[in-house]
Amino acid sequence: MANTDFDTYLTAHRDEHLEQLRTLLRYPSISTLSAHAADVRDCAQFLGEMAAGIGFEHVELIPTPRHPVLYADWLHAPGKPTVLVYGHYDVQPVDPLELWQTPPFEPDIRDGRIYARGASDDKGQVFMHLKSFEALMQTTGQLPVNVKLCIEGEEEIGSPHLHAVLEERREQFAADVLVISDTTILGPNQPSVCYGLRGLAALEVHVTGANGDLHSGLYGGSIQNPLHALVELLASLHLPDGRVAVEGFYDRVVPLTADERAAFAELSPDDAQLAADLGVPELFGETGYTTLERQWARPTLELNGVYGGFQGEGTKTVIPNQAHAKITCRLVPNQDPREIQDQIAAHLSRHCPPGVRLEVVRQDCGQPYVTPFDHPAIQLAARAYEQAYGVPAAFTRMGGSIPIVETFTRILDVPVVLMGFGLATENFHAPNEHFSLANFDRGLRTLCHYWLGLAEQGV
Amino acid sequence: MANTDFDTYLTAHRDEHLEQLRTLLRYPSISTLSAHAADVRDCAQFLGEMAAGIGFEHVELIPTPRHPVLYADWLHAPGKPTVLVYGHYDVQPVDPLELWQTPPFEPDIRDGRIYARGASDDKGQVFMHLKSFEALMQTTGQLPVNVKLCIEGEEEIGSPHLHAVLEERREQFAADVLVISDTTILGPNQPSVCYGLRGLAALEVHVTGANGDLHSGLYGGSIQNPLHALVELLASLHLPDGRVAVEGFYDRVVPLTADERAAFAELSPDDAQLAADLGVPELFGETGYTTLERQWARPTLELNGVYGGFQGEGTKTVIPNQAHAKITCRLVPNQDPREIQDQIAAHLSRHCPPGVRLEVVRQDCGQPYVTPFDHPAIQLAARAYEQAYGVPAAFTRMGGSIPIVETFTRILDVPVVLMGFGLATENFHAPNEHFSLANFDRGLRTLCHYWLGLAEQGV
Repeated sequence: MANTDFDTYLTAHRDEHLEQLRTLLRYPSISTLSAHAADVRDCAQFLGEMAAGIGFEHVELIPTPRHPVLYADWLHAPGKPTVLVYGHYDVQPVDPLELWQTPPFEPDIRDGRIYARGASDDKGQVFMHLKSFEALMQTTGQLPVNVKLCIEGEEEIGSPHLHAVLEERREQFAADVLVISDTTILGPNQPSVCYGLRGLAALEVHVTGANGDLHSGLYGGSIQNPLHALVELLASLHLPDGRVAVEGFYDRVVPLTADERAAFAELSPDDAQLAADLGVPELFGETGYTTLERQWARPTLELNGVYGGFQGEGTKTVIPNQAHAKITCRLVPNQDPREIQDQIAAHLSRHCPPGVRLEVVRQDCGQPYVTPFDHPAIQLAARAYEQAYGVPAAFTRMGGSIPIVETFTRILDVPVVLMGFGLATENFHAPNEHFSLANFDRGLRTLCHYWLGLAEQGV
Repeated sequence: MANTDFDTYLTAHRDEHLEQLRTLLRYPSISTLSAHAADVRDCAQFLGEMAAGIGFEHVELIPTPRHPVLYADWLHAPGKPTVLVYGHYDVQPVDPLELWQTPPFEPDIRDGRIYARGASDDKGQVFMHLKSFEALMQTTGQLPVNVKLCIEGEEEIGSPHLHAVLEERREQFAADVLVISDTTILGPNQPSVCYGLRGLAALEVHVTGANGDLHSGLYGGSIQNPLHALVELLASLHLPDGRVAVEGFYDRVVPLTADERAAFAELSPDDAQLAADLGVPELFGETGYTTLERQWARPTLELNGVYGGFQGEGTKTVIPNQAHAKITCRLVPNQDPREIQDQIAAHLSRHCPPGVRLEVVRQDCGQPYVTPFDHPAIQLAARAYEQAYGVPAAFTRMGGSIPIVETFTRILDVPVVLMGFGLATENFHAPNEHFSLANFDRGLRTLCHYWLGLAEQGV
């Protein structure tokens, strides 16, 4: 077997693979919307059939109270490492729909990219794993390592049930290394291995005033407007210098080391260029930190949605009786998501203006995660990238959250390798999400090199 | 002719009148929504036909760039005063629709009230004027005074075109007194004549960040979130003690006199009872003023709507690229609406955080209005109320705005009498708007007494 037979195979089957990817992307598997529960399940079913077609065995849709976990394995490489591949087949909601240039669930290839919800986060990357195994199986009749698949349908809602599945089935999911492709690389020609992720803590805030909406002429000035109370509360969460004003928020944050700050500085983007690319007048963030430090290693508190009162065309002179906000925090070691939720709830209670009622609802949580980058499984990943891309891989952290990473390390005690193929500009969670076909092609080859490397060198 | 023949007539025709009122209320004449333009016009047409049926002449739908003004007259009482009756047949939007117990445009009579959008504001009251004239016409063969009708379809969007209509047709609309029924009385058994209204200044605020929505994990902490900028801006508009923080906002406010404050104090509601009725934990407003002073004679700045980002079920980790707010101010003599808009725009520009773009759109304006309450047309109105209700009328001001009042006085130089029949609890601009049938009955008789009083005593 020549090490690059997979390359010939992938080239020959590219069109067929892209057609299969389109089919996968057509499932509107939005996990947070209960109306899409059947679509989520259908998508899992489709992936399971694809895995079986490749040669995976024990294909199973493990039920949970909401969306199933797809398990499958191929365990016929005695003496070789066992790799657990994690990914997710659920996607984020698609609104505002009117901003999509082509419909989110009708994949469209243009300008060397495939556009669709889930193209990069994370169906496209899950698909590449399956096709890398298919290429090796088709060209060598086997896989170089033992492989287990764990593809879940609840990542975008905080993986509420994977925890329990892993606890119940520790043996079934046991592995020597966990590989996840749900992260980005630094640029189209700059592969990178991510060794840290931020955690997540989500909350909803509800402010209620009168029994119903009131006329602002009759009552304006004599009762608290819930929107006034809400904006005052939300404004109190930050200081003008960009820091989070919640008492205790930074108490457990592990400071960046001088080495890390120096490594980050080398990778630092051109702030002016980034601002121009994003279309903002200037970048803005916590005083005393660079853009990469703010994105990868500092915690945040973001408003994801604020709403109340009249949103239609024209004027409506109303005092609404409700006002709402959705908040998520990105957390870094050693912040604790539940403690952060408590601190925010306490802050909001303490600052609530008179004349309204406040309710804070605690939602999804995910622990932050950082692993040493000198682990062999990480170093082999960097080599695989270099083999496919022709340039050395950088070592990065990432601002996003894959809360389940911390769960995997805690329950399965397995090293985690975050091998991403997305680009930060690919509009995850936003209209016009897309995935670069150049990274699709090179990523498939990176994964094949990695499986072969793990087989040769072990972990 | 006995002065109370109209009473017998109104009693005999009550069911028929309520059926006609239902028909009027079925028109979804929402002036601010362009999709309802035809409904607005149909409603004007219906009222014009009703006026003609009563005996009005020169019925005309005066076109404007948006919604027509209904004109009609009956001018066969030589030597008697000419009364101009102003009202509006357009209504506010109806969202949130799910909070209506019965559909807003399917009028429902229950508990002695008629429920529908426009029941009290202002179709119900316009309808009473027409029926008071019908009662006098049917029982005496004529009207006691000369009458002109001016019923417009743009009151709820700030009457943008009535001004030009009045300027062009000063002679046609000339009158000795202007009577408007678009206000409230103090209570079911406490009639009142309103001698002052607050003005209005409306604005929209738009904050824009990046080219599109961004992933809060990847970019969170490194760019300004438009929602953060918006809540900071909006929170800066008020001080914690309830005062408006906009520089210059109070500069032109005419202070309440000691006499007015004493008169207001006599009419003052029980704050604890009002809070309980509204369902709020406590009342809240500008330090140093009573509830009535805050509602009638102090200016306000209210957020009527705030929106941006994700509003759906669950969590969406997005940094939205837009955030919006709708603001209206209630103004008192001698504040100038356009100057107030400029002051707010300047305040917002001065306080805008870095990293976003701010746009402030100036919208509707209306001047505040106060008239002396010893004018004979006002005193006769008080007597008419007393004749119908059996108790003396109080003299009040009102927190709402009828911007056109100031326009009428300026263009036509005519005294204005605000004879309202609504109650403050009738949910104008809110779900479950309704109108008391007791006030419907007594209001019809009040108007008849008033026309007869004007004929007897002149103005």
